Amino acid sequence: MNCELISVGTEILLGDIVNTNAHFLSKQLAETGINVLFQCTVGDNRARLLTALDTALSRSELVILTGGLGPTPDDMTKEVCAEFFQKELILHEPSLKKIEDFFALKNIPMPQSNTKQALMPEGSIILTNHNGTAPGCIMEKDGKAIIILPGPPKEMIPMFLDSVKPYLRRLSHETILSHSIRTFGIGESAMTEIVNDLLESENPTVAPYAKNGEALLRVTAKAESTEKAEALLAPVTDEIKKRLGSYIYGIDLDSVEQAAVSLLKEKKLTVSFAESCTGGLCAKRITDISGASSVFHCGVVSYSNDIKHKILGVSEESLERYGAVSPVVAAEMALGIKKLSGADFGVSVTGMAGPTSDDPDIPVGRIYIAATDGETLYLKELNTGHFGKDCRDYNRFVSASNALNELRLCALSYPKKRSEGIDIKEFISSFKEL
Amino acid sequence: MNCELISVGTEILLGDIVNTNAHFLSKQLAETGINVLFQCTVGDNRARLLTALDTALSRSELVILTGGLGPTPDDMTKEVCAEFFQKELILHEPSLKKIEDFFALKNIPMPQSNTKQALMPEGSIILTNHNGTAPGCIMEKDGKAIIILPGPPKEMIPMFLDSVKPYLRRLSHETILSHSIRTFGIGESAMTEIVNDLLESENPTVAPYAKNGEALLRVTAKAESTEKAEALLAPVTDEIKKRLGSYIYGIDLDSVEQAAVSLLKEKKLTVSFAESCTGGLCAKRITDISGASSVFHCGVVSYSNDIKHKILGVSEESLERYGAVSPVVAAEMALGIKKLSGADFGVSVTGMAGPTSDDPDIPVGRIYIAATDGETLYLKELNTGHFGKDCRDYNRFVSASNALNELRLCALSYPKKRSEGIDIKEFISSFKEL
Repeated sequence: MNCELISVGTEILLGDIVNTNAHFLSKQLAETGINVLFQCTVGDNRARLLTALDTALSRSELVILTGGLGPTPDDMTKEVCAEFFQKELILHEPSLKKIEDFFALKNIPMPQSNTKQALMPEGSIILTNHNGTAPGCIMEKDGKAIIILPGPPKEMIPMFLDSVKPYLRRLSHETILSHSIRTFGIGESAMTEIVNDLLESENPTVAPYAKNGEALLRVTAKAESTEKAEALLAPVTDEIKKRLGSYIYGIDLDSVEQAAVSLLKEKKLTVSFAESCTGGLCAKRITDISGASSVFHCGVVSYSNDIKHKILGVSEESLERYGAVSPVVAAEMALGIKKLSGADFGVSVTGMAGPTSDDPDIPVGRIYIAATDGETLYLKELNTGHFGKDCRDYNRFVSASNALNELRLCALSYPKKRSEGIDIKEFISSFKEL
Repeated sequence: MNCELISVGTEILLGDIVNTNAHFLSKQLAETGINVLFQCTVGDNRARLLTALDTALSRSELVILTGGLGPTPDDMTKEVCAEFFQKELILHEPSLKKIEDFFALKNIPMPQSNTKQALMPEGSIILTNHNGTAPGCIMEKDGKAIIILPGPPKEMIPMFLDSVKPYLRRLSHETILSHSIRTFGIGESAMTEIVNDLLESENPTVAPYAKNGEALLRVTAKAESTEKAEALLAPVTDEIKKRLGSYIYGIDLDSVEQAAVSLLKEKKLTVSFAESCTGGLCAKRITDISGASSVFHCGVVSYSNDIKHKILGVSEESLERYGAVSPVVAAEMALGIKKLSGADFGVSVTGMAGPTSDDPDIPVGRIYIAATDGETLYLKELNTGHFGKDCRDYNRFVSASNALNELRLCALSYPKKRSEGIDIKEFISSFKEL
């Protein structure tokens, strides 16, 4: 079954509010096995709303409208839909009673204009609003249906979940189920090349996405039940796991920090961060995860060289000779925070986040990340390639993601060392001898 | 001039992502005096995209599309638009060079599929992408224009602001100008009461908003030129400034941290943070501001009591007797980081961010914030009143905002002390004597 969403409201067209209703409904409909082919937003305007409705019903069996159910004259969604289906609006007494009670409870006299909210299209299914004054409704005609819901999410969402979803489940006989396979350290194109043949699969479908410096694969199956959908997904998901290996940090996880925290908890390991250019973002992101306190010891944001030396024990020689954005300083920061805090791992980030560089030899977007258990060093040089005037947020975010991913990889292989590790003391002293 | 937005992407129709592009563009177009009459979202599907384009161009002079410029075969926005305007796609050498450079810089071989991103409709105006590989373009025909922009906001937004906005300004003849007067420490209702009479003004209009624990007033004027709009705005803005005083942290500033950094720079002052529940968010937010390095010394994220004692010198007695979420620990953390770093101000945050509290006496949402110059203590107890299951992000954000605002108020009055200050050593020792 095909569905189209129409969001009604000039405030959306003016950019005053973000249209989260369309997002919520699309997600819900996908889960119910209903295809959303178009979303449309239109202002509080009779002619344009009629046009949108006409277009939508010409190509979809189901149209869901949100917004425009208020008491003021510019609220006209119900009126226009009734006109379109040639239905009268008639007073729905139980709804009027509910609206009167609502005002009585608040000890406010009911404005006359609110009566309008109880006028409903004849023959429609009334949807009670437990969180506001405007009821919704479902109108059916010639095998097509229009569902009208209030605009405020706190009214719309419960009405959808309580009344509309059960109605839709009866109409649809299909379940759509998706898993997001999230990777780190591989670009979208490179990932796509590895799984290219799988992208042609029809059920489940496999689709690549890129977001915030990460690539992910969405695997989606249609079936008559959740169990059957899972059975279709399993072999494809397994094949992808085999091909992408440790690039995958999780399935249906929100972030690489979530993967890192889970692994650290599972293996009872702890971490501390020494951050320069990320300015606390690694610590912030790991403590976004509720319960991070059992794995996170401390963070030091050492923005100045003085603090890198005084608190983290980075040698003045390294800072002077190689500068703060250098492999050796990254290594010394990681070792310094590991020793200072006594955590199992010390992870550091130092780099040039931009928008400008104060060193002609170091381009904006060059970042060094070091992770250590006190003996072995894992060092990564990153060149983000982002140096526009808005690059700073991106560079900081991606640097923190990479640091969190290094931590994840260390925890993943623990108690084994990762093959790319080198001796940290030898590495640091090799710079002193020069 | 009328405009229609088409967002292209199956991931929007599936409810995987919120369509923030439509929000951003609508807001920008409103400011430019261009009417957005419809927004539409369509999947990665040739036939449906052609339909959407046809409908849009039949009723609007301008259509802006976002998304579908990636290297994979399901990215087809440019191809479909070229087909619609009957234009050939031809290789744009400078764009190809940029894409090649992008991969070279990252030391990754360029996948062949990325070449597709440099194929552009003949005769179009190319919009350089400084933050990704997909260039955008503007196609004009018979008095109508199609503007094609990449989907990721970090690429789309700078491209719009740098290239599209100036192009649109030339097309439109009305200017709408807004200023946002941003406050901290006063609620929306209390603010509205102070300026209530001004809300009835018609040009400029004055409208209150609340966002992320802050209240702001948007003052908006329409005129034929920027100068004339500014002249309309000035007297109303001045009146509001007079009434709201130091609640106002800035006009058209993005954040309270921006105000704090400006004041610190101006007065050549420095700050360091000691954070517990905010987990690095204060440091992260102050270092979001480019050039923060001249005012920010260091941050310590002391999540455990052990680290609070070892690095910040918080007394074990205070931690044991009063707990980590207490006024005296906040004061000792602020004094500790001030001494450790040698900055002019030490600012600390300790509190219960949630979602659960591990101490029956301390509700989720209780936060202590301390700021000190080494002699005087400014202490604030916050009870956010947020303890639902999604309260953590909000509580952390609002706590950091309050800490940054305390810092702003200290810098604002400097070299004078603020009247609410008390002697920090006396304060701390009063807890020892008990």
